[in-house]
Amino acid sequence: MVDNNLFLNIIDFIGYIDQLKNVTRKNSLHDRSREENTAEHSWHAAISGLLLAPYADQPVDVNKVVKMLLIHDLVEIEAGDTFVYDKQEVAKQVNTESDAAELVFSRLPDEQGKILKNLWDEFETRETPEAKFAKAIDRFLPLYSNIANRGYSWEPYKVSQSQVWEIASIIKDGSSCLWELVEDMLNEAVQEGYLNP
Amino acid sequence: MVDNNLFLNIIDFIGYIDQLKNVTRKNSLHDRSREENTAEHSWHAAISGLLLAPYADQPVDVNKVVKMLLIHDLVEIEAGDTFVYDKQEVAKQVNTESDAAELVFSRLPDEQGKILKNLWDEFETRETPEAKFAKAIDRFLPLYSNIANRGYSWEPYKVSQSQVWEIASIIKDGSSCLWELVEDMLNEAVQEGYLNP
Repeated sequence: MVDNNLFLNIIDFIGYIDQLKNVTRKNSLHDRSREENTAEHSWHAAISGLLLAPYADQPVDVNKVVKMLLIHDLVEIEAGDTFVYDKQEVAKQVNTESDAAELVFSRLPDEQGKILKNLWDEFETRETPEAKFAKAIDRFLPLYSNIANRGYSWEPYKVSQSQVWEIASIIKDGSSCLWELVEDMLNEAVQEGYLNP
Repeated sequence: MVDNNLFLNIIDFIGYIDQLKNVTRKNSLHDRSREENTAEHSWHAAISGLLLAPYADQPVDVNKVVKMLLIHDLVEIEAGDTFVYDKQEVAKQVNTESDAAELVFSRLPDEQGKILKNLWDEFETRETPEAKFAKAIDRFLPLYSNIANRGYSWEPYKVSQSQVWEIASIIKDGSSCLWELVEDMLNEAVQEGYLNP
């Protein structure tokens, strides 16, 4: 027997999260045509998690990774996107996102809200193999777009190699072969002159 | 031991599919601010499949549904998006998308390419519970946006109630409670005057 209130609650939530398509990030598409939004980033992250799961350092439950990446940025509907190289903003962001998570996930029926909130907490805490790997994917993608478009979001903010290295190093905890690739990419970006040494 | 060629092949594919963010659909966001692209639609579909799985008529493997919806429109990188109400285009689309599927999935390492191609075929054939339900979600979302924004993509193409009914009826095969909701929504759209009787 379908509980119609719970069902309609989920339908409302599906309408609500349409707003994630309007949250703009600092990095652009690979072809530089425009800045990326968080909904399409979340799709790219989920499918990348699916494809790259065999390259996680620890065995991961790929279904959990995919779900984690689908929902990891829902909080941005309320908190907006924070540029990872803006340290002041990132420091504020921890509380803002945690408040936003309460707001966002409490819009779902209790049981589903709790499951997704726990998954989001797990992602943020970065202790389980799935969370470490999912975070590696999340960090890799904007780097990859900056490699493809020769520093679109690095240039205007004068982001330096050491800043990128610091942010990227989280990738090491999830996938050492992804990290090796990133090291090569960053070295090439410096050599080619679109990442400041 | 990591096979570096296979790994780099997947990395290339992840760069390639960035192009799905540039495929524009006829329907707009719920707030009418702009037309939707296929990458963000795929995210919305995958997360909707996750949330609505308890409302599928037959029990479904939710992880399979999510994967199916993540990849269901990758072919549009090569084939573009076809407006569901354009019958001539839809007739051509079957072959075009099937050719495009060969192209797209053959860019992956053999094993992963075969898995995703089979999943796409399953979705298109609409025989398994997962495919029927995933297709219901895929059909529901643009209807839902047209309800939210009072017929944004119906109006310019003079789409009528009977056309929408025909396209929407596929939803019945996947989820009867989603179908009941859609019937209510469409009746209201006619009453409110933004869907032609």
